[in-house]
Amino acid sequence: MKQFLYPSHIGDLKTALAEAFEIKHDRYKYESLGHHKTALLIFFNNSLRTRLSTQKAALNLGMNVIVLDINQGAWKLETERGVVMNGDKSEHLLEAVPVMSNYCDIIGVRTFARFENRTDDYTEQILRQFIEHSGKPVFSMESATVHPLQAFADLITIEEHRAKNRRPRVVMTWAPHPKALPQAVPNSFAQWMLAADVDFVYTCPEGYELDPQFVGDLKPIYNQKEALKDADFVYAKNWSCPGVTRPQEYGKVLSTDMSWMVDKAHMDLTNNACFMHCLPVRRNMIVSDDVIESPRSLVIAEAANREISATVVLKRMIETL
Amino acid sequence: MKQFLYPSHIGDLKTALAEAFEIKHDRYKYESLGHHKTALLIFFNNSLRTRLSTQKAALNLGMNVIVLDINQGAWKLETERGVVMNGDKSEHLLEAVPVMSNYCDIIGVRTFARFENRTDDYTEQILRQFIEHSGKPVFSMESATVHPLQAFADLITIEEHRAKNRRPRVVMTWAPHPKALPQAVPNSFAQWMLAADVDFVYTCPEGYELDPQFVGDLKPIYNQKEALKDADFVYAKNWSCPGVTRPQEYGKVLSTDMSWMVDKAHMDLTNNACFMHCLPVRRNMIVSDDVIESPRSLVIAEAANREISATVVLKRMIETL
Amino acid sequence: MKQFLYPSHIGDLKTALAEAFEIKHDRYKYESLGHHKTALLIFFNNSLRTRLSTQKAALNLGMNVIVLDINQGAWKLETERGVVMNGDKSEHLLEAVPVMSNYCDIIGVRTFARFENRTDDYTEQILRQFIEHSGKPVFSMESATVHPLQAFADLITIEEHRAKNRRPRVVMTWAPHPKALPQAVPNSFAQWMLAADVDFVYTCPEGYELDPQFVGDLKPIYNQKEALKDADFVYAKNWSCPGVTRPQEYGKVLSTDMSWMVDKAHMDLTNNACFMHCLPVRRNMIVSDDVIESPRSLVIAEAANREISATVVLKRMIETL
Repeated sequence: MKQFLYPSHIGDLKTALAEAFEIKHDRYKYESLGHHKTALLIFFNNSLRTRLSTQKAALNLGMNVIVLDINQGAWKLETERGVVMNGDKSEHLLEAVPVMSNYCDIIGVRTFARFENRTDDYTEQILRQFIEHSGKPVFSMESATVHPLQAFADLITIEEHRAKNRRPRVVMTWAPHPKALPQAVPNSFAQWMLAADVDFVYTCPEGYELDPQFVGDLKPIYNQKEALKDADFVYAKNWSCPGVTRPQEYGKVLSTDMSWMVDKAHMDLTNNACFMHCLPVRRNMIVSDDVIESPRSLVIAEAANREISATVVLKRMIETL
Repeated sequence: MKQFLYPSHIGDLKTALAEAFEIKHDRYKYESLGHHKTALLIFFNNSLRTRLSTQKAALNLGMNVIVLDINQGAWKLETERGVVMNGDKSEHLLEAVPVMSNYCDIIGVRTFARFENRTDDYTEQILRQFIEHSGKPVFSMESATVHPLQAFADLITIEEHRAKNRRPRVVMTWAPHPKALPQAVPNSFAQWMLAADVDFVYTCPEGYELDPQFVGDLKPIYNQKEALKDADFVYAKNWSCPGVTRPQEYGKVLSTDMSWMVDKAHMDLTNNACFMHCLPVRRNMIVSDDVIESPRSLVIAEAANREISATVVLKRMIETL
Repeated sequence: MKQFLYPSHIGDLKTALAEAFEIKHDRYKYESLGHHKTALLIFFNNSLRTRLSTQKAALNLGMNVIVLDINQGAWKLETERGVVMNGDKSEHLLEAVPVMSNYCDIIGVRTFARFENRTDDYTEQILRQFIEHSGKPVFSMESATVHPLQAFADLITIEEHRAKNRRPRVVMTWAPHPKALPQAVPNSFAQWMLAADVDFVYTCPEGYELDPQFVGDLKPIYNQKEALKDADFVYAKNWSCPGVTRPQEYGKVLSTDMSWMVDKAHMDLTNNACFMHCLPVRRNMIVSDDVIESPRSLVIAEAANREISATVVLKRMIETL
């Protein structure tokens, strides 16, 4: 596996799930695989779960790990080509990427959407430079449009908690948030669910429709309560306007309607659904205290599976070195 | 050992000291013990000695180590329950703690007193959340009221430098400082000395009396010069008002009396005492250049023993996993 | 090797080069050498290449590595002796250095010129305190006046790309830059080239003459175009005024003459020279896009050799422990 952004990169999801459970059963099983291999984890943005779980995954595989916080201890990188670099950025990504790739075997990159330019974000401008210029396998640790380690972990979690005798109904619902957030998590979750053996729908206010690149021709259900009916899994998440129909609204907060917050009344509409969220979560904005603390909440289990999804991905990448 | 805040947690101090010297003699002796074990060191506050010595201790035991600086590379954590999280804190400790505990076997936490609310500090509000919600052994790397790795290292240092034929007199003295400092170090030092085989007294200006939780019914000697008489060890430290008698003064600087600075005239009152300080130290505020640079100064030896105390603590915690 | 600042510290350069190529051929060859040895890498300033390549070098040798960012996660250190520490610096380097040395076997330090006082910079005030007070081998990861890991990597790169049948002509040229930069890289590059088996000259505007400590009695060629004639290697670099003739101009930007930028017209004057730069580089200030992207550009190769030079240096230091 030379890059990891989309479910297609990991191939058959049933095989990937089987590998995940094998590793979860014995997380050091492939410890010899990473001998003399170095993972470089590059953070352009903050991280808690990804930072910890990906380090742990690399250690599970016996790899060396080097963590680099760009903008903290390194310096600002220019990403535009052809500029006279007389400002505050002292190095160009065109040098920095091949340089960094010298010292490692596999590269993980966290680089959030900047909301300056929809095209830059939706072409994964920065991650693409790593893929093109590093010569090394590159995986997204949440990039401008995707968060595949999270979506894969979510899939593992659903597989662990689904009723075995029927196809689960998975409902992703938009929820309010005080700041403009990227679409990386909903994009990936939708894309992975549509590739998996589940029934998937999503619900959001008008204007929040996700990009067809991730949802194909699936349309949202605008009535949240209708969407939640019979749900086995409720996946809550805020995202800002994806700008599919009105690009000028890309990255804007179009609604702060608190009636979309997932509380007990919402969960009562479901088929005794499990509650899911990728974390970090704003309590009493996205979800009420009682729902996130209920026995049906899987948020901690999802986070725990981040170690597992990252171990599978790193293992696959080592195998192709 | 499931938590480490107080001397009672490590049990018999003579046994602990014997273990410390065994490890100091051969610091990699228990290297196989930490195989496949991960220590997560979480810093809410700055650290030099603790950061380095605890990493080294974990490496001595063959552990993997992951260092996390909250507020640098992670994000601000909400600690109050029930709030609507619409401000600058994007994750609640109630999620963050169990999440972080997923990726490790043992957790160290540095979290200073905030001086906003005496009760919050003196109930170790943040550290307690780790103890209650992580399901993993948790040790203080200096928390709101205690710094047990330092006190244990100080005890090791005293044991190395005491006359063998008699019980040493250990005198802790308050000293001036430009900023309001927590009571963690004096609390722990007093608590450990009172549990150890030494004669312990402390001296401070009025209003600086330590909390009975740590000193029992021991009262300070308000006359510094009288207290220093016959001292074998002088332990200097600044702390702000513990607020025992007047809670409204908690965390305040009540005195900046420079006559309390430990200089040669002060040391001349003692029984040719060793000088001790936990570091970092403000020279020519807490202690004069000549005293800290004298052959009787143990400050570097104390810091060196931080590796040893941390190795003993991690070893004990691994043994109970 | 107890310190590493100058080519003299590594001894015969042909031997050092042979060792470098041996390690480049098999970078884990000496992996057992670093067993139970800890490298402490201390950064007072930002770093990308040095941070990554030196970590990788230590891992090549089987060492444990601890990275410490002073001012990020630690605290500000006082470096002047005798002061009353009542300001923002809470620890003195006189304590911090021996403390930090307790937890490691070898120390690397990055500490840039501060431009406050030429004497402080040119006596390597901070690095000297580590050398004098740590009791451990200390190497510069770029300090006030030198960057020897870079110069050694540059030498390795030149050796790899030189014509074998004749002594190469190596020309270092000053180039414009928007900010005042230290002289560490040009000082070390000149010093290493003068010690190596090459013909070395350098060219710069008047006032930019390097300190005789590094260039002996070599004078610059003030006419850049004349200097570039017949060059086999062009090494571009900005530096601020070294203050050799007029100390009051130390650290000042004396010229921003864009005609010194290395572009194709400049390279056409050479003997089809290779282009070199230590990175980070300001594109279209120091060098044009086409020159740095040309097949004759060695900038990525130089960076790759940073891992090799650092591995040789750490290996030599381990051997003298």
